Amino acid sequence: MTAQTYAPLTPETLAQRLGSLPELAERVGPADSWTVKEVGDGNLNLVFIVSGSAGQAVVKQALPYVRLVGESWPLPLKRSFFEYHALIRQEARDPGSVPAVWHFDEAQAIIAMEFLFPHVILRQALVEGRRVRDLGERLGLFCARTLFRGSDLSMKPADRKADLALFAGNVELCDITENLVFSDPYFDAPLNRHTAGLEPAIARLRGDLSLKVAAQHLKLAFSSRAETMLHGDLHTGSVMVTETEIRMIDPEFATYGPIGFDVGMLIANFLMAHLSQPGHEVAPGDREAQQEWLLFVVEAVWDRFEAEFSRLWRTERRGMLYQARLYEDQGHGLAAEQALADLLGQIWRDMLGFCGIEMHRRILGLAHNADFERIADTGRRAACEARALAMGRQLMLGAGSLPGIGTVAAMARRMNREDHL
Amino acid sequence: MTAQTYAPLTPETLAQRLGSLPELAERVGPADSWTVKEVGDGNLNLVFIVSGSAGQAVVKQALPYVRLVGESWPLPLKRSFFEYHALIRQEARDPGSVPAVWHFDEAQAIIAMEFLFPHVILRQALVEGRRVRDLGERLGLFCARTLFRGSDLSMKPADRKADLALFAGNVELCDITENLVFSDPYFDAPLNRHTAGLEPAIARLRGDLSLKVAAQHLKLAFSSRAETMLHGDLHTGSVMVTETEIRMIDPEFATYGPIGFDVGMLIANFLMAHLSQPGHEVAPGDREAQQEWLLFVVEAVWDRFEAEFSRLWRTERRGMLYQARLYEDQGHGLAAEQALADLLGQIWRDMLGFCGIEMHRRILGLAHNADFERIADTGRRAACEARALAMGRQLMLGAGSLPGIGTVAAMARRMNREDHL
Repeated sequence: MTAQTYAPLTPETLAQRLGSLPELAERVGPADSWTVKEVGDGNLNLVFIVSGSAGQAVVKQALPYVRLVGESWPLPLKRSFFEYHALIRQEARDPGSVPAVWHFDEAQAIIAMEFLFPHVILRQALVEGRRVRDLGERLGLFCARTLFRGSDLSMKPADRKADLALFAGNVELCDITENLVFSDPYFDAPLNRHTAGLEPAIARLRGDLSLKVAAQHLKLAFSSRAETMLHGDLHTGSVMVTETEIRMIDPEFATYGPIGFDVGMLIANFLMAHLSQPGHEVAPGDREAQQEWLLFVVEAVWDRFEAEFSRLWRTERRGMLYQARLYEDQGHGLAAEQALADLLGQIWRDMLGFCGIEMHRRILGLAHNADFERIADTGRRAACEARALAMGRQLMLGAGSLPGIGTVAAMARRMNREDHL
Repeated sequence: MTAQTYAPLTPETLAQRLGSLPELAERVGPADSWTVKEVGDGNLNLVFIVSGSAGQAVVKQALPYVRLVGESWPLPLKRSFFEYHALIRQEARDPGSVPAVWHFDEAQAIIAMEFLFPHVILRQALVEGRRVRDLGERLGLFCARTLFRGSDLSMKPADRKADLALFAGNVELCDITENLVFSDPYFDAPLNRHTAGLEPAIARLRGDLSLKVAAQHLKLAFSSRAETMLHGDLHTGSVMVTETEIRMIDPEFATYGPIGFDVGMLIANFLMAHLSQPGHEVAPGDREAQQEWLLFVVEAVWDRFEAEFSRLWRTERRGMLYQARLYEDQGHGLAAEQALADLLGQIWRDMLGFCGIEMHRRILGLAHNADFERIADTGRRAACEARALAMGRQLMLGAGSLPGIGTVAAMARRMNREDHL
């Protein structure tokens, strides 16, 4: 079927089209036992759950347009190719971190993979006030391992350059990030939308020249600093969890970019979850413990990222950069430690900048977060969002002088007591 | 003939193999009028001058190994492909800056191009104490135009990403830069060589941990910051000149990298020419005027680069970065000027770092400069080289606080009066 012309799957045709694949039959059972449900609730793709006598599978298929918008916004099927290539690299670099891939059909833009159960989308769990054991630690490990091992700190130079070239083809999804994340929030772009009442806060941001300069420096960094393979869209909607298990999904935005990008986007989404909690209160103060836990997660993400990145630096630095033959082998291990500290400092500053950008675009751009969107009272929602906007600005412009993740958590706590509308 | 198996040209076979190409016949004349001379004096390739009844041409062919070393150091023919693609982009971005390309045969790794006459290699002219009108200005313009117009400041994002992917294939030549330029000088690598008597100065450099950290940060920048298409090897041996005309040649090291790289390498080669002059004195002081002129060139390269880059920023900024719709169109032209200043500051600091690296590798690594090598007296040579090593270190570690190119020139003048052996 790879030779067939592309055709979208339907629940009715799926078993007939994929049932003869041995990699599915052996895990799900014979095709005549399959039942198929379309469950895609994302913005872009078809997603099916296939249940059979032996087990279950998820079948994800790209559509040639943005599902949320329709055929008027075409988007190439090739994103499925990049998602597949990112998934197999993430699995190799951090085993068990992503769903197992069972089948990939490039022409049909289909990935068949492990069905995660009873996992739910992390963002949904956070909105409901639920917690996940070791969440920040697991996410920090994922970032450190995939980002370190996709870079010239670890890979053979020819392999990294080949991957750089491969993911440079992911033009249209990068274009979404480049425009919707880095530019649209900072002017009155057609696709933007925002909560009523936020206008004065928005006018302040869009009149802040230093902020607009910083945003474009970050766009330059995102588009030109090809340090490692990014997940590219690592927010709390790209994480599936049970109370004890955590998997990363949907890396179709994968591209080579700065190490700090994924970590910054992730932390931004926990800070927004934190700042949105007052909007979900039923009784005064009933979200305070959840708020503190979210800051605990923020600190754990960074701390574990830093610790694991440092461990890999000291034990797996086999790429062409900062080679041991220049440092440790010359009795200059101190140079290796200094270089690591410098690099972590750069990643930290980048991370804060990308974190701030993400907090802005989720409130001012096209794609909003359920964390804020589920706050029905627009006045309460705007109050929460205005705090996130102010904090995002501070992270972007204060990145050079914020000493550590504890300061960021303290800043978030402080924001809850202030009015930024 | 593109379908033929690769075979090196010889003066005897060239007319038979290329004589039927109309793009050569019309410029050089019929093949039976051709005389062919092999003149390659570089490290890598075959170079022929073809003379006929109507004119002349240069035919350059890659060999599947490093000519200087022999078949024991294989090097892919594909470098000819990257040279061709770089040449046509440089011509488009700065018309008249490179030889006109008349024919390219990928399978045979052959580029046939305009014969430059009476041009000589700039480095040779400098060693002889000759000058070239408007040299620094022309080089500064070339850098600004090719570097600006090969970046996301100017190109369509999909085009830049396609070029990024294309040049990411230039693995083996990048590998030469990555190892020979950024790493080998800083430890006792097998391919290194140096002038007798330099040992104490070398020991100081290789014991300087901060310097070795800075060198690897620059290697990371070179390999990951895919800002623009670089020439990649822009030293004074890659420039051909008459007293009034200037052309850039040999961009086979082309790759995407940081804007400051080409400018830094270029300025390093003029600083080395400057510091080598005392070694070429016949009578005391007879090279002083040439020395001052070389510093004038250094200042002109940077000043013109900065001026032209700024002009292009203000008039041709049509890429996805720092868009006018965010700045000028909102009445925030000041933000565009601030962003330009920030970016030029970053390029300046990068330039100084790469400049220092180039000064080190030309003295400590495999590929040395005629500027120093032609100083027969090894004691005098080592004295000049030790000054270049010390100055290179200062540029790398002082990059964050050197205020302008005049300071760099003043530093060079000062060095001539000091003993750094």
